[in-house]
Amino acid sequence: MVKKTAKDQQIIRMAQNAKLAALSLALVPTKTKNKILKHLAQVILDHQDFIVKENKKDLKAARKQNYPKALVDRLVLDDKRIIEMSKCLKDTAALADPVGDVLETFERPNGLIIEKVRTPIGVIGIIFESRPNVTSDCIGLCLKSGNAAILKGGKEAFYSNKTIFKLIRDALKQTEIPYQAVQLIDSTDRAAVHIMLGLDQYVDLIVPRGGEGLIRFVAENSRIPVVKHYKGVCHTFVSDKADLAMAVDICVNAKVQRPGVCNAMETMLVSERIAGEFLPIVFEHLTAAGVEIRGCSRTRRILKNKPNKADELDWTTEYLDLILSVKVVKDLDAAIVHINTYGSRHSDAIVTENKSEAEKFFKSVDSACLYHNASTRFTDGYQFGFGAEVGISTDKLHVRGPMALEGLTTYKYCIRGKGQIRT
Amino acid sequence: MVKKTAKDQQIIRMAQNAKLAALSLALVPTKTKNKILKHLAQVILDHQDFIVKENKKDLKAARKQNYPKALVDRLVLDDKRIIEMSKCLKDTAALADPVGDVLETFERPNGLIIEKVRTPIGVIGIIFESRPNVTSDCIGLCLKSGNAAILKGGKEAFYSNKTIFKLIRDALKQTEIPYQAVQLIDSTDRAAVHIMLGLDQYVDLIVPRGGEGLIRFVAENSRIPVVKHYKGVCHTFVSDKADLAMAVDICVNAKVQRPGVCNAMETMLVSERIAGEFLPIVFEHLTAAGVEIRGCSRTRRILKNKPNKADELDWTTEYLDLILSVKVVKDLDAAIVHINTYGSRHSDAIVTENKSEAEKFFKSVDSACLYHNASTRFTDGYQFGFGAEVGISTDKLHVRGPMALEGLTTYKYCIRGKGQIRT
Repeated sequence: MVKKTAKDQQIIRMAQNAKLAALSLALVPTKTKNKILKHLAQVILDHQDFIVKENKKDLKAARKQNYPKALVDRLVLDDKRIIEMSKCLKDTAALADPVGDVLETFERPNGLIIEKVRTPIGVIGIIFESRPNVTSDCIGLCLKSGNAAILKGGKEAFYSNKTIFKLIRDALKQTEIPYQAVQLIDSTDRAAVHIMLGLDQYVDLIVPRGGEGLIRFVAENSRIPVVKHYKGVCHTFVSDKADLAMAVDICVNAKVQRPGVCNAMETMLVSERIAGEFLPIVFEHLTAAGVEIRGCSRTRRILKNKPNKADELDWTTEYLDLILSVKVVKDLDAAIVHINTYGSRHSDAIVTENKSEAEKFFKSVDSACLYHNASTRFTDGYQFGFGAEVGISTDKLHVRGPMALEGLTTYKYCIRGKGQIRT
Repeated sequence: MVKKTAKDQQIIRMAQNAKLAALSLALVPTKTKNKILKHLAQVILDHQDFIVKENKKDLKAARKQNYPKALVDRLVLDDKRIIEMSKCLKDTAALADPVGDVLETFERPNGLIIEKVRTPIGVIGIIFESRPNVTSDCIGLCLKSGNAAILKGGKEAFYSNKTIFKLIRDALKQTEIPYQAVQLIDSTDRAAVHIMLGLDQYVDLIVPRGGEGLIRFVAENSRIPVVKHYKGVCHTFVSDKADLAMAVDICVNAKVQRPGVCNAMETMLVSERIAGEFLPIVFEHLTAAGVEIRGCSRTRRILKNKPNKADELDWTTEYLDLILSVKVVKDLDAAIVHINTYGSRHSDAIVTENKSEAEKFFKSVDSACLYHNASTRFTDGYQFGFGAEVGISTDKLHVRGPMALEGLTTYKYCIRGKGQIRT
């Protein structure tokens, strides 16, 4: 038994307070929650200049440490982003409240009436990196769904997260929502995360958001259930029955429109029957957009200016960059086997004009989101119409794909009797 | 990195084979699955004498080792129990197949049509103790819901489990279900369990069934999601607005009808306003049934032949025996706080004639199953009408309460487009 430090004790107290707050938050009516979310949206707007000022401290430190430009970009909170943060809270207020929904009602032969009712989960731990808007977005979703939230941001956004959190927490003190329902662990090290991951008596769910390293650390050390995705190795299969012009548009969009995100395509699979015709056309568009191709041997035979060779590792790599691995496959079955073997169960697409091919793809590919004649880039809480999202799950338990308000709920059975006993 | 033994390698191969089998099992039509389940039911009946003979080897070993009588009772496979096993497989064939159910369909403004479709989870690991009928019951539920199953039974049922498993597996070899979809780890030690719990690339879900020790071992060592309940510390709160005759029936039933199971009552909470009237009456019935009372100080003042004293530990103890802890509480609020503090989130009941009291109890108590005017003993897959059950969950993620076919499924999003790309 390792002795607990004062810092450890502080995190344990946070979790205990969050649990108590969650029990009363679960009873707050929808109207009140919405009113308070709109108030929080206004508080963010009212403190725009202050947030920008505090954010500059993080940006200064990041530049001093020579953080990559992409990371610094994600850190920035300018007026536009702060208005978006505020809007997200307002939008969350406008979403339907899932709590209290009756999912099923059934009567048993003995007269018992069993109702399955949606309820909040309890206490949600969210561990995230860089983007400080996650602080207010996730607090909004958790409060709307009746859950307490314990946040732990990355050290690179220390001042920004702390500022947004403090504004929200101070504002909550004047409301019917117990302010202890939101908690921020402002340690900058992983030891604090480690303590939280052991508190399964208080915390019901952990959602890690960030790089694969962070997520593996969380998954390997948590005694609390985790909803996560490690990475998105997304595929598009172009069938010999595809509309090839449509296939070009979809593949270019899935790779190029925003290559640094998890729902971008990383591997293109092409039916051998149309590879000779399709590959040169799509290659031209991809190359024009700056994409580097890594091809299987057949791809390299077809394309004149021989692209780089794809090796076994490429099939499981999430490039998050303008790089694409390409494989010529025999047919739909071979495409399905490739995706189920090398994919990450995130988002995969088929382009075909043949409906039964699409249905077979839907049935056989073991991924969260499957697309027929559309870009994988649509896997996103906003695009699905869920409002904001807490994350995307490639797990199979509890929630799959974009996770929003419903993913933040569980259910209980409420059973009404007239004195029934078991014989 | 610990070197892998031949036994470890064997378990890894089992899991790999199960994963491959699961992918094709997911495509087997309902009719075929039902036909095969009925066939398996017949195979069990046809080998009744053989099963009894093999079971006797386990019983002999158990008696030799002086296992407790209750455990030996659970081990016995007599003709009656084998007929029940067979019936369970036949009943499972008759249940509705959840796979393929469309849970939701919605169209987005860009014309994408998103369908949320129920699918099998994949590979389910079931780790259980004593009762060998779990082998066939769980194989039935897993196959019906399109999942592969890896079973690991207790050493006390070694011969019984192996026999039932082999009969089923041999029978599957003649069918459209890949026989590798069922696997049995016949090691008798926990090292084998430990290997399985690390195979998160092949196994999607672990369900442990047995004593709290086994379940804690699994929860603490698993990298795979676990659905479980540690124990059932179930409460009945008798309000001052209760029909006291009904309250007596419900409390006696919840404690006495089968005290050794997780949905039996362990603590009775009584409103102080009726404690003086109610306690002597219920005490008489409970004592007549052989129940030992452990009371709070107020309970002990009310009851003439002073019962034993309940201490802090009693409030969290699952006796699984004819023992009941009793506490007099101020009111409904105090009962709710007691249950949320000491309970195990399993099943809790309120007896009251006042509907708004019942609604408050339903909203405020954080348990899987809540009862108004009925015995907690109804928390059970059969009683809920789910057919058999794989287990009961007091977790909040994925599934809560009795877990049967639906709890063995997940969903995927199937999205149909006409060439939509993201702008």
